[in-house]
Amino acid sequence: MSQALRLAERGLYTTQPNPRVGCVMAHGEQVVGQGWHERAGQPHAEVFALREAAERARGATAYVTLEPCAHHGRTPPCADALIAAGVARVVIAAEDPFPQVAGRGIEKLRAAGITVETGLLRDAAREINIGFFSRIERKRPWVRVKLAMSLDGRTALANGESKWITGEAARADVQRWRARSSAILTGSGTVLADNPQLTVRFADEAFTPPLRVVLDRRLRTPAGSHVLDGHVPTLVLHATDATVTDHRFDLVERKPVAEKDGALDLHAVLALLAERGCSELHVEAGPTLCGALFAAGLADELLLYIAPLMLGDSARPLMHLPSLGDMADRWLLRTIDQRQVGQDWRLQLRPG
Amino acid sequence: MSQALRLAERGLYTTQPNPRVGCVMAHGEQVVGQGWHERAGQPHAEVFALREAAERARGATAYVTLEPCAHHGRTPPCADALIAAGVARVVIAAEDPFPQVAGRGIEKLRAAGITVETGLLRDAAREINIGFFSRIERKRPWVRVKLAMSLDGRTALANGESKWITGEAARADVQRWRARSSAILTGSGTVLADNPQLTVRFADEAFTPPLRVVLDRRLRTPAGSHVLDGHVPTLVLHATDATVTDHRFDLVERKPVAEKDGALDLHAVLALLAERGCSELHVEAGPTLCGALFAAGLADELLLYIAPLMLGDSARPLMHLPSLGDMADRWLLRTIDQRQVGQDWRLQLRPG
Repeated sequence: MSQALRLAERGLYTTQPNPRVGCVMAHGEQVVGQGWHERAGQPHAEVFALREAAERARGATAYVTLEPCAHHGRTPPCADALIAAGVARVVIAAEDPFPQVAGRGIEKLRAAGITVETGLLRDAAREINIGFFSRIERKRPWVRVKLAMSLDGRTALANGESKWITGEAARADVQRWRARSSAILTGSGTVLADNPQLTVRFADEAFTPPLRVVLDRRLRTPAGSHVLDGHVPTLVLHATDATVTDHRFDLVERKPVAEKDGALDLHAVLALLAERGCSELHVEAGPTLCGALFAAGLADELLLYIAPLMLGDSARPLMHLPSLGDMADRWLLRTIDQRQVGQDWRLQLRPG
Repeated sequence: MSQALRLAERGLYTTQPNPRVGCVMAHGEQVVGQGWHERAGQPHAEVFALREAAERARGATAYVTLEPCAHHGRTPPCADALIAAGVARVVIAAEDPFPQVAGRGIEKLRAAGITVETGLLRDAAREINIGFFSRIERKRPWVRVKLAMSLDGRTALANGESKWITGEAARADVQRWRARSSAILTGSGTVLADNPQLTVRFADEAFTPPLRVVLDRRLRTPAGSHVLDGHVPTLVLHATDATVTDHRFDLVERKPVAEKDGALDLHAVLALLAERGCSELHVEAGPTLCGALFAAGLADELLLYIAPLMLGDSARPLMHLPSLGDMADRWLLRTIDQRQVGQDWRLQLRPG
C-alpha cells in the first residue's frame, strides 16, 4: 500500500479535479502490476495496473489507495474491471466519499466473491487527497493559506514593498504548492498592491493549471492587471450589485457572490469553488483576506515561510485578526511539518 | 581537543567570571589525565589534568582549550606547572586575549623547550567562551536577547498579558540560558508590567547566580518588586540626576549611568557591565529595550522561541525598530541553531 501511495503521488499535479490514486497488483510479495491515475478522462489507477498484470491479475491482491469506482463516469467502473480480471482480494486504504461510489465499489466487489479489506494506511491515503475529501465531505475546498514573513512576523514594509522577504528556494517551493492546487485565491487589494500573476512557474513537471480566483467585491481590478490577461482560466467574484462598463474583464469569467458584513461571504465563495471541482485552494492574499479566512475557521492550513530577517514593527502584520482580551482565546495551531528551504524556514500548520 | 572542549563545557554554569577551560593529557591515543576549570579561585583545568596524570605527565601532550595562564592570579601560573611536570607538547585551541596572558603563556612554554601548537578547533573554543572573548576583546559582554513570540510575531496581548505564550519545555530551556549568563538584563517597563524574578530556577546543576540588572532611568521600580528583594545580587542603573527618598532600593546596588537620546546610554551600560566581569549578558526585556539594543548593533544574538499559535495584529510587537523605507535595509540574521523545544521552536540567530 505504501508503494501504491507513492504511485498516487505521481498524479499530484495533474489529476484535478479527480483524486490522486495509486494501485499495486501482487501475488504475495511479487508485484505483477502497478498504475496510477494521471489525468481526468484518462484511465484510473486500477486499469493501468490490470493492463500491466494482464493474465497475472487472476488470483492477485490489488492494493488501491481509494475505493474503486462503481459507476460509469468518463471511464467504465474499475470494480467491474477488477472482477472481470479475476482478482482474488482488494485492499483499500480509504473509502471513496463520492456519492456515486461511497461503498458501492466495495459492495460490488464483495458481491462478486472478492475479499475486501479497508483502512490500511487510511490516514496517509486521505492526506494525499485532503482537498478531494474536503470538497466531497464538507462541500468546501481544503484552504491552504500561504504567507511569507520576517522573523518579527511582517509581510511587507509600511510602504507595501515585499520583494523579496524570502529567498529563491522558498519562492520556487511555493510554485509546487500552487501547482498541486485546484485554484489560487487572492483579493483585489493584493492585485492593486503587487499585481501578481498567480500562475505556476514550474518547468520540472506537467501540471493542470489552477484556476485563478480574485475576490473583487467592487470590481476595482485595474485594466492591465496580470490576473485579467486571460493566460490561464480566471474567475473574478464580486458583489451582486457591482457593475462594470468597460472591457477590463473580457478575458476572464465573472460571477456575483452574496455579501456578508461588508465583504464577500467567504462561506459562499468556498461553496461555489467546491461546486466547480476545487479541491485544494491555495491562498496568496493580504492580511485582511487571510485574517478573515483564519478568524472564520475556514483556513485549514497555514503554509508559513519565515525568513531570518527583521522588518520592524512599522512593517505590515501577518494577518488582521480580532483583538484578544484573554490569552485563553489565542489561536492554537499544530505543526504538521517544518523544514529549512534555502535560508528560510517553512512551517506547515493546522488549527487545533 | 574535542574531549577537552567537552570537559570545558562542564564549567558552563560555574566558572563566571573566568572562562570555561578543559584539558586532556595524553601519550598518543592514551589519555593519562583530564581536568576542567570549575569555579573562579579554584585550580585551572591544567592543574586537575596534571594531578590525574601525575608521573605520566612527563613527555605527554597537553590539549588545552585556552592558552595556559602565565601570571599569578588567584592561582599560580599553569604554564609553570606544565613545564615543571615535564610535558613535551602543548596543543592550544584558542589564544587567551586576557592582557596578562595574551601570548605570554605560549612564550613561556616555548622558552622551556616545549612544542606549542595553536588553533586546533579554535572556533569551537572561542564559541564556548564567546562572552569572555567579547568582554576582553570588545570591552562589552556578548549580548543575547531572548524573546518568546507567537507565529505572528507577538510577545503579549494588547492588554499586556503574556503568560504563557510558550510551553513549559521552552520556559525550562530558558533557565539554562539564564544560568550560563553572567548577568540578566531587563528594563523598568518589564518590571512594572510583569514583575519578573529574573533568577535561575534550575534544580539539575550547580550554577553561579547571574547578576540581576535593571535599567531604571527614573528609578520608578515600585517597592515590593521581585527584582528589589535582594535574593540575588542586583544592580539598578539609573540616570545621574534620578533620586530616591525611600528605602525601596536598600537591598540592591544602584549606579548612575550617562544618558543618550533620552535613555540610558547602552554603550555605557555594556562597558560598565564588562568592567564588572560580565561575559554573557542575557536580556529579557520589552520591545523598546530589545529594539534599542538591536537597532544600535549591540544585540549579538537573538534567542527566539516561537509558539505555534496566533495572537493577532493588535497584540504587542516583537521589537520596536526604526521604520524601513527600503527592503535593502532589512536586518539580516544568520540561523546558528534551530530545534523543537516541546511544542515550540527555538531559533538562535546572529546579525549579518
